[in-house]
Amino acid sequence: MQRYFVPSENWDDHNVYIKGDDLHHISRVMRFRTGHDIICNHPDGQAAICEITGMDEHHISAEIREWLQESTEMPISVTVAQALAKGDKFDHVLQKGTELGASAFIPIQAERSVVRWDDKKATKKMTRYSRIVKEASEQCHRNKVPHLHPAQTISDVLAQSDDFDHKLFAYEEEAKTDAFQTFAQSVGRMTSGERVLLVIGPEGGFSPKEVVLMKQEGVTPVRLGPRILRTETAAMYALASISYHFEEWECT
Amino acid sequence: MQRYFVPSENWDDHNVYIKGDDLHHISRVMRFRTGHDIICNHPDGQAAICEITGMDEHHISAEIREWLQESTEMPISVTVAQALAKGDKFDHVLQKGTELGASAFIPIQAERSVVRWDDKKATKKMTRYSRIVKEASEQCHRNKVPHLHPAQTISDVLAQSDDFDHKLFAYEEEAKTDAFQTFAQSVGRMTSGERVLLVIGPEGGFSPKEVVLMKQEGVTPVRLGPRILRTETAAMYALASISYHFEEWECT
Repeated sequence: MQRYFVPSENWDDHNVYIKGDDLHHISRVMRFRTGHDIICNHPDGQAAICEITGMDEHHISAEIREWLQESTEMPISVTVAQALAKGDKFDHVLQKGTELGASAFIPIQAERSVVRWDDKKATKKMTRYSRIVKEASEQCHRNKVPHLHPAQTISDVLAQSDDFDHKLFAYEEEAKTDAFQTFAQSVGRMTSGERVLLVIGPEGGFSPKEVVLMKQEGVTPVRLGPRILRTETAAMYALASISYHFEEWECT
Repeated sequence: MQRYFVPSENWDDHNVYIKGDDLHHISRVMRFRTGHDIICNHPDGQAAICEITGMDEHHISAEIREWLQESTEMPISVTVAQALAKGDKFDHVLQKGTELGASAFIPIQAERSVVRWDDKKATKKMTRYSRIVKEASEQCHRNKVPHLHPAQTISDVLAQSDDFDHKLFAYEEEAKTDAFQTFAQSVGRMTSGERVLLVIGPEGGFSPKEVVLMKQEGVTPVRLGPRILRTETAAMYALASISYHFEEWECT
């Protein structure tokens, strides 16, 4: 069943009201008419089967038929702080990271990021990023759309990182040492409901200054397997592994 | 150190001879000269530090200095049978799948693959695919370049699947059932040195006929976490999880 994320102000006790892009998607792309059922997600994570009861050019109204007892959210809340990278790599991280269960994303302006964050284009960029995470959430049946933070430097992120229970950074040099800290050691210390910050560097890696800063602030360097991963693959590895550990392995 | 995969016929007891694209890469792109060290990988998985001792327009010779005792190959050999998909998705699966440790790829012409395999363009396509897996192997420091099979149907693959110790297919319907077979149950039964076949369907999923056929042939349906993954994300989830399980978790 097609799924739409509807802002909280568009819900009342019995109905949901859909506007904007989703109105267009329902009426023009899917060509649904009154009587058709859709799933509407509330930003609090709940979802309901709703029947379309009315539509005009300004809004669609749908009556709440049944609240669903489903949860597809990871038991661990992972915030991916991903360095800006060339081409459409950041878009890929947002899309795949959403599928793989990330709860938030922070675009990082790292010292070695080849791409520079342009404040003039920020609004346009954030709008595109928001659309990517919303569409990916609908497609993969998430209960919540991941939160999108504005672009920051690593020191900005660290300054606001006290709320996290675990802080990790992917460090390729770690993969080359014998006494490496395995990622699994860190994952093994996590428990359901905790918050994790995962920092991923750009193509050229972190600068020595950034590495020192992160270590000083208690961010643990981890290797993600023995192979050297590209920047856009690192978060995928980490998210898939955390999902595997908590959503698959602990179910056996 | 820059790494090159050199065919076995270009090795003798003391030297390695490099031709073709790699010759161009060494002399023109990297601008290495005699005296410079590179890593050469033998197709059997061994690698050595070699010093460039001579170069002309036809070949580069390099003397073997030191055999490396490294292994970045997964202890489980995973063959990814991936349905052909739209756009550059298959290219992404090859590139990311190589980074994540896949040992072979089979392009699958599934019943619902929107993309049709064109035999006339096959040679050109396979050449591009080969280049992607070779370059990704060099970039992520693999010991072996994954093997690339010609395109096949699911029944072709099954007819030659007796050598695999474990056969799995990603089945999104499995994620919706309560009594799902977790992927981790299957991974938990794997042991080092075994061979795994992992079949991933196209955007539209497997046809009912393909599902029946795979089940009859002993291919186990698995869910890959509770969210619905895109076709190009499924193999990444599975490979990252197997790497996590055997290369990270079992190291703790």
